[in-house]
Amino acid sequence: MLKLVECVPNFSEGRRPEVIDAIVGEARAVSGVKVLDVKPDASHNRVVVTLVGEPQAVKAAAFHACAKAAELIDMEQHHGEHPRIGATDVIPFVPISEVSMEECVELAEQLGAEIAEKLNIPVYLYEAAAKSPARKNLPDIRKGQYEGLKQEIVKPERHPDFGPAKMHPRAGATVVGARQFLVAYNINLGTSDVKIAKKIANCIREAKGGYKYVRALGVMIEDRNVAQVTINMIDYTGTPLFRVFETVKSEAARYGVNIIGSELVGLTPMQALLDVAEFYLRLEGFDRKQVLENRLFE
Amino acid sequence: MLKLVECVPNFSEGRRPEVIDAIVGEARAVSGVKVLDVKPDASHNRVVVTLVGEPQAVKAAAFHACAKAAELIDMEQHHGEHPRIGATDVIPFVPISEVSMEECVELAEQLGAEIAEKLNIPVYLYEAAAKSPARKNLPDIRKGQYEGLKQEIVKPERHPDFGPAKMHPRAGATVVGARQFLVAYNINLGTSDVKIAKKIANCIREAKGGYKYVRALGVMIEDRNVAQVTINMIDYTGTPLFRVFETVKSEAARYGVNIIGSELVGLTPMQALLDVAEFYLRLEGFDRKQVLENRLFE
Repeated sequence: MLKLVECVPNFSEGRRPEVIDAIVGEARAVSGVKVLDVKPDASHNRVVVTLVGEPQAVKAAAFHACAKAAELIDMEQHHGEHPRIGATDVIPFVPISEVSMEECVELAEQLGAEIAEKLNIPVYLYEAAAKSPARKNLPDIRKGQYEGLKQEIVKPERHPDFGPAKMHPRAGATVVGARQFLVAYNINLGTSDVKIAKKIANCIREAKGGYKYVRALGVMIEDRNVAQVTINMIDYTGTPLFRVFETVKSEAARYGVNIIGSELVGLTPMQALLDVAEFYLRLEGFDRKQVLENRLFE
Repeated sequence: MLKLVECVPNFSEGRRPEVIDAIVGEARAVSGVKVLDVKPDASHNRVVVTLVGEPQAVKAAAFHACAKAAELIDMEQHHGEHPRIGATDVIPFVPISEVSMEECVELAEQLGAEIAEKLNIPVYLYEAAAKSPARKNLPDIRKGQYEGLKQEIVKPERHPDFGPAKMHPRAGATVVGARQFLVAYNINLGTSDVKIAKKIANCIREAKGGYKYVRALGVMIEDRNVAQVTINMIDYTGTPLFRVFETVKSEAARYGVNIIGSELVGLTPMQALLDVAEFYLRLEGFDRKQVLENRLFE
């Protein structure tokens, strides 16, 4: 079966299309890599690129794009609303298929070392690749942004994980890491009472004693006059969709309310939906190699 | 997204590995075609080959394999337990992904015409590709087998759909057609009373007033001491897995019996399982392009 990782590098350029094209072109040129999405934001002055493909190919694509960004983006001239510390601001690897989180952490480490060594850019490891709790969250690493980190990088507690304790004169610093795929999932309730959606959101979100990998809010969908539990599933392998759906169903029943539907926003790895089918059909001994499409690339 | 068809040609050779290899080798040599399975049966003296890939590539692979079989198999010398009328006995096309049944019927017609024209083999169209109800079922076309059809092919009602009304002197005749993917699905009950499984099987099978595309039997799984409803889903797009599961659950409850699990035997198209997830999560506006893996081949 095909080994697949996703990689979502963020570059500090959202206004000059020719620069964005040149950076993305480097990734696109790598065989075995598919560019799924390019989302520039002019006010953030930032572009989010989504790559997917085999691990080593995706890593190579991320490196070449990062090198091109270092060539074409000058952080001394960069202004935008989004926090950032470098031309290539952050590069997360995401396991999709037949790849473990550990393998994504290794990819992040390999890429971080390569960026530091070949491009002389300081690199920080974050999320699942973080070497200490203080480096786990991106905002902590990005504190002070490019301008602030330029001063503080010499302090031992802010030394990078790879490369010099000195900002690259144009490209700044880069954060590389590994995380799970974020599934954006909404559940619509058969009520226009947003208070019920808010109560249910509190039942399932980690912050209120709910599921570890769930972020949730109760909101009103005005044009449908429907209350919605809007959810970020930050690790569908740890907290699966069906469990959240069933809990919302059970909590809604407490108020005599039904689930009228749910929505997946954007992309979802196949596995997240196979897990749902496996649960509800009570499948025994199911192997994803039984999905015909998964046999194409053996 | 990738357009995929499956093709499952059956050849009248199950004993000489070198002949099987030569036939399968022709299919394997076509770029864009994956040979998923080769199942020879010596007592049937027959081999079932499973190919998958893009429609035109799969059609080409089936043609070349059929030509090689005509070269290497002599029906005058062929003996085996399984009914057959030709060296390439039957070639069904099966829609898997982004391909309609109509497209598979067209593929069958194109291949049938090509086999008749280039190899001078009479071809019958069956199942979804049949031109008349009398040709729908394979056993009707195969009546009398190779030896009988050799005499009867001259009768107007047994004339082929393509090619001469005369058997090929070595290769006989071939049946080409299109059908849905058969999903083999078993549901295990929390009882050792096989009578309950038999009653439930009768609720869901077409023959007894059940679902149109369901064949089912109640059987005993001796080593687990569990009664099972064993099911052939002959068209999961017409009768989906979740509907059968829910009906079995409801009928079993009539006897105070639970479903303890279910099993998929062999391969299943991804769509059959996505349909299950879509049903149970009550997904609104779901598009299979939201499955990340489906975006790889756009």
